[in-house]
Amino acid sequence: MEKRHTLELGEFELIARLTKDLSTHTSNDIGVGDDCAVLDLGAPQLLLATCDSQVENVHFTFRTSSPVQIGHKALAINLSDIAAMGGIPRYALISLVLPSHVSVADLDGIYAGLRAIAQQYDTALVGGNISGAGQGEQLVIDITVLGSVERGRVLLRSGAHEGDLLCVTGTLGDSGAGFYSLHHPEIALPVDTLTYLHERHTMPAPRVADGRVLNSFGPSIVTALLDISDGLSGDLTHLCERSNVGARIDLAHLPLSSQLRSLASVTSCDPYDWALHSGEDYELLFAVDAQHFAEVQQAVQTATGTPVTVIGTVLSASAGLRMVSPDGSTRRLARKSWDHLKRPTT
Amino acid sequence: MEKRHTLELGEFELIARLTKDLSTHTSNDIGVGDDCAVLDLGAPQLLLATCDSQVENVHFTFRTSSPVQIGHKALAINLSDIAAMGGIPRYALISLVLPSHVSVADLDGIYAGLRAIAQQYDTALVGGNISGAGQGEQLVIDITVLGSVERGRVLLRSGAHEGDLLCVTGTLGDSGAGFYSLHHPEIALPVDTLTYLHERHTMPAPRVADGRVLNSFGPSIVTALLDISDGLSGDLTHLCERSNVGARIDLAHLPLSSQLRSLASVTSCDPYDWALHSGEDYELLFAVDAQHFAEVQQAVQTATGTPVTVIGTVLSASAGLRMVSPDGSTRRLARKSWDHLKRPTT
Repeated sequence: MEKRHTLELGEFELIARLTKDLSTHTSNDIGVGDDCAVLDLGAPQLLLATCDSQVENVHFTFRTSSPVQIGHKALAINLSDIAAMGGIPRYALISLVLPSHVSVADLDGIYAGLRAIAQQYDTALVGGNISGAGQGEQLVIDITVLGSVERGRVLLRSGAHEGDLLCVTGTLGDSGAGFYSLHHPEIALPVDTLTYLHERHTMPAPRVADGRVLNSFGPSIVTALLDISDGLSGDLTHLCERSNVGARIDLAHLPLSSQLRSLASVTSCDPYDWALHSGEDYELLFAVDAQHFAEVQQAVQTATGTPVTVIGTVLSASAGLRMVSPDGSTRRLARKSWDHLKRPTT
Repeated sequence: MEKRHTLELGEFELIARLTKDLSTHTSNDIGVGDDCAVLDLGAPQLLLATCDSQVENVHFTFRTSSPVQIGHKALAINLSDIAAMGGIPRYALISLVLPSHVSVADLDGIYAGLRAIAQQYDTALVGGNISGAGQGEQLVIDITVLGSVERGRVLLRSGAHEGDLLCVTGTLGDSGAGFYSLHHPEIALPVDTLTYLHERHTMPAPRVADGRVLNSFGPSIVTALLDISDGLSGDLTHLCERSNVGARIDLAHLPLSSQLRSLASVTSCDPYDWALHSGEDYELLFAVDAQHFAEVQQAVQTATGTPVTVIGTVLSASAGLRMVSPDGSTRRLARKSWDHLKRPTT
């Protein structure tokens, strides 16, 4: 029996400890370790299941997010996990732990946000639970989303091969930059610049449609897929560990929004720090067979308008994780992404 | 926008408010309002989905439950919801909000409890999530369980007819009595009496096997089914509201354990108060066609050893909810079961 506190272990070690030796029912089920559990219940499509929570004063505050935004994001982060498997979201169950300070108006706002994004992504809210928090102070919104995906077309983290190209959708680091600017209201930038960054943090758009385009190519072309929730350095580490590969990324190729560049230019912040290490972008990171890259990029951009950018290459496992700086020097990519257990209060 | 606090509404009014107008995907799906959502994904069997949480200092304390018991109960209450549909539990997703005071040893114990009951009920732990609680103090264990049930054999709350018999499995009120005795350590009773009551509170046994026997009779014979989580008076109210019927129960027929009677006899407590109004028994309450009662009772007792007791009769809706006291007088049955929002700290 260990007397250490859980925070000493950190999120990923803790998950590994708790999920060791867990097994699933049938050989078609894919258990713990990807963005969703993949379950075979004998339906034409496989079932996807994922859960994720938002905790007051850890993931959000009522000071920096509206109730509608809080509801939106609580479901968006789960829809993003379905996108990260190439799946179709279907159903959501909402579980709330309600402290006494949450008003009926707050809760109506949260549900307005939940219902709006659920409708947008054709996801039915089919159940849930409400518990009081007693003397507790924290609102917890824990959501389970169920989805479906075609047999043989589920996109896992584990199929990347040496020579595949590493790609991301959209731009990186905006959520971290938005978080920063929300906590530095003295920053002088045009209101639309700040609004863009704030909404990238508070109202992320899950890349479900993009995931569906990647799904249409199947795992022999899109060899690995996940969403960037922990930050690029952390999520790329997950991809490499699960695929047993290494990787090299080129800093100069990371897609940065003009708004993020503006914020970096008026502060002392390094834009690459946000792009590499800040969490909650909810963009997709994927590995693609190099011969099919142009076709995949074109298909995503045509279907959804989302830019797809090559940020690096898959290497052999022995190469580890490397980062090429804009000056051409190469160093090891350190994982500094957010540990959800140790995350600073927002 | 209302400025009232959520606690002024209460759990059931709040759920009604939040779930108003929610709809599901297809006409085969049965949405909010039963123990589980019933979802049709095209598999041979229907999918059941339910979530429920345990919140520290609201539903449990580390002072009155061991970590193993906390893990056991967190899954047991969800398995009970599957039992309450006559279904088979299949998969569970575990979501934790971890405060800093929880040690690795605590968490290992909780997972030992979770794994043991998962194995006992053939339920695979296939996913989950861990969030830190930041400055928060409360451990939250929120679990989603997925199950399956044969098409045409799902047992809802809504099918009871006038003349059906109302039945319960096992004995009523033990969990409430166990809760009481855990908080009155000065009570002098044999240790096995107290242990029985404590474990009925801290280690409830979901009636999955009993639910499967009821399922085998189908909804034309077992016309309504739910589990007693809120207390008999509250859950009977749910059954009557959903079935649009009234009911009469006979206090003298409520099955009480000898241990509960012993506790009541050495305290000033009314044993019927526990049996009627204390929550968390996780026994099954069901309505059965009177002509088939003996057959159903025999089948359950043969298969599982669980006693089945007739506690009353289904009446027309206009009759409301009535209770016949041991002296033969009849009065209205007031719902005093636990509101999970207003529940006293354990």
